[in-house]
Amino acid sequence: MSHTIAIDCMGGDHGPSVTVPAALAFLRRHPDACVVLVGQESLIRPLLASFPADISRRCTLRHASQVVAMDEGPALALRNKKDSSMRVAIDLVKEGEAQACVSAGNTGALMAISRFVLKMLPGIDRPAICTVLPTMTGHVHMLDLGANVDCEAEHLRQFGIMGAMLAAAVDHLERPRVGLLNIGEEDIKGNEVVKRAAELLKDSGLNFVGNVEGDGIYKGDADVVVCDGFVGNVALKTSEGLAQMLSTFLKQEFGRNPLTKLAALAALPVLRRFKARVDHRVYNGASLLGLRGVSVKSHGSADAYAFEQAITRAYEAASNNVLERIAAKLAELQSQQQVVEESV
Amino acid sequence: MSHTIAIDCMGGDHGPSVTVPAALAFLRRHPDACVVLVGQESLIRPLLASFPADISRRCTLRHASQVVAMDEGPALALRNKKDSSMRVAIDLVKEGEAQACVSAGNTGALMAISRFVLKMLPGIDRPAICTVLPTMTGHVHMLDLGANVDCEAEHLRQFGIMGAMLAAAVDHLERPRVGLLNIGEEDIKGNEVVKRAAELLKDSGLNFVGNVEGDGIYKGDADVVVCDGFVGNVALKTSEGLAQMLSTFLKQEFGRNPLTKLAALAALPVLRRFKARVDHRVYNGASLLGLRGVSVKSHGSADAYAFEQAITRAYEAASNNVLERIAAKLAELQSQQQVVEESV
Repeated sequence: MSHTIAIDCMGGDHGPSVTVPAALAFLRRHPDACVVLVGQESLIRPLLASFPADISRRCTLRHASQVVAMDEGPALALRNKKDSSMRVAIDLVKEGEAQACVSAGNTGALMAISRFVLKMLPGIDRPAICTVLPTMTGHVHMLDLGANVDCEAEHLRQFGIMGAMLAAAVDHLERPRVGLLNIGEEDIKGNEVVKRAAELLKDSGLNFVGNVEGDGIYKGDADVVVCDGFVGNVALKTSEGLAQMLSTFLKQEFGRNPLTKLAALAALPVLRRFKARVDHRVYNGASLLGLRGVSVKSHGSADAYAFEQAITRAYEAASNNVLERIAAKLAELQSQQQVVEESV
Repeated sequence: MSHTIAIDCMGGDHGPSVTVPAALAFLRRHPDACVVLVGQESLIRPLLASFPADISRRCTLRHASQVVAMDEGPALALRNKKDSSMRVAIDLVKEGEAQACVSAGNTGALMAISRFVLKMLPGIDRPAICTVLPTMTGHVHMLDLGANVDCEAEHLRQFGIMGAMLAAAVDHLERPRVGLLNIGEEDIKGNEVVKRAAELLKDSGLNFVGNVEGDGIYKGDADVVVCDGFVGNVALKTSEGLAQMLSTFLKQEFGRNPLTKLAALAALPVLRRFKARVDHRVYNGASLLGLRGVSVKSHGSADAYAFEQAITRAYEAASNNVLERIAAKLAELQSQQQVVEESV
């Protein structure tokens, strides 16, 4: 079956000049996929002229008259921007015309509109933002990254289920290892919410590997790391800040004088390979999980390559049936719960 | 006035073979300082033989018959190890024979014993662990890093006061910029505790610069970053994990084949300078703040150079009157509070 991705072409810092070429690159790499480009026709149409015929056939343009601003309040965007590119892209998923949507627009608005239009999956109280990070041994799915600032243990359990089903689907893992972000490996560590969440995750039927410390995220101690949105957001942004600082320092040292610049020249192929290995653009595209539809958020500053990765992430979630797997797991757990309750 | 540092020579992964040479290096660099080496005499005495006479004069050995194990429960260590090197070192501070103590031993035990022996400063409810991290523009003091897993807003205010007075004293800053770790820069971001803490910090008389995001720690957005111990610990360990991963990847790329190894040779002086700039050993030594005495925790795995930095940190806290500055600020704030209350 071919899958169609609805793309909010107006979102992000660069709009169609980035999102449309990204869509072209994505379609080239995925010959079965289709896209709907949503946004202001007058801006998008001229960019399609260069598309080869076999790709144009898989590409529909859908005009939307409004744009959600990057700093617009989610409630206002929800109320006043019913013909925005973001809203129309999400509506297409709701109506079944697309199997996933992608936007580089404002996170709060994307979350609010996705939640309002698509609704929550039964058994999930709150949506979560899940991203992929590189590790020593591969990569890890981490959630939540900022949708929820005050979580209860039950929410963390639900994040574990959603993250595990996402990892199972897109990474084709039988039993993804689920870890709980904590400040020590022992059970007695952490705050009350985390301790209770560990108990719930132990009984969840998931492959729960216990507590993971901050450094364990990058060591590859788990395939899925669960945390509340405040902690997850701090961990993610701290990582971004540190990576930026180290990269700046490395550039400064190689640029210090003619001799060090010569050394940089000699080391260039190595430095390029290193850079490619930790290229944050590869990991662009955070999934909003817990909704009855696939909605993916790209970094606002994404370039065409990075935005293409976000489209690909949406496509992989749709084509690997992430939603169905989460829903099936929730139904399975609920029926087990009922059996337990009836037998008590 | 000369200052004396009590050193727990038995703590850490390596014991006297690291702590004693570190003490020697410290004394060489600080001709006014004295140390008391605390631990098993039979192990320490032989290492002192090589000390030059002018340094031996500033170095006392104090036998302690017990050692707190790295995995020992804090409560047990407190109850059963009254003649441990850690306990005796802290006792020396309490008795005024030393102005600060340093240990690479188990953090929980050091915190529990320091708190029991030294007691809390009036006006401080909970001690906090504060460390120094490198930034794009210099360095930052960050607290708490794990002493408190469930903080109230008032605790964060107190951490702000302690961190600011530490930065003022050791960095000689008139009005250190105090930031609150949060998941957005706007006032409306974050959980309830953080929002309330921001209000308290605004009214604290400190130079409060508002919310700092994870990446702002390394950008140098503040001189002091305040957070609860769970979040701080995750941010710190996540940073350690990421730095380790990047360093491993860089080594792997430079070690890939004879050509890349040649490039590594050409780049060696640059890579060495880069490494020196972000050498975590330079930042070793976390201060336990809020106590009526200076107690500094070194990484358990510290080598002699790293442990020397922790001794230096303790010495600088003592010689710059960090405790007196924190106590004076607390008294000043308390008297202002009384004036306000009386005038109401």
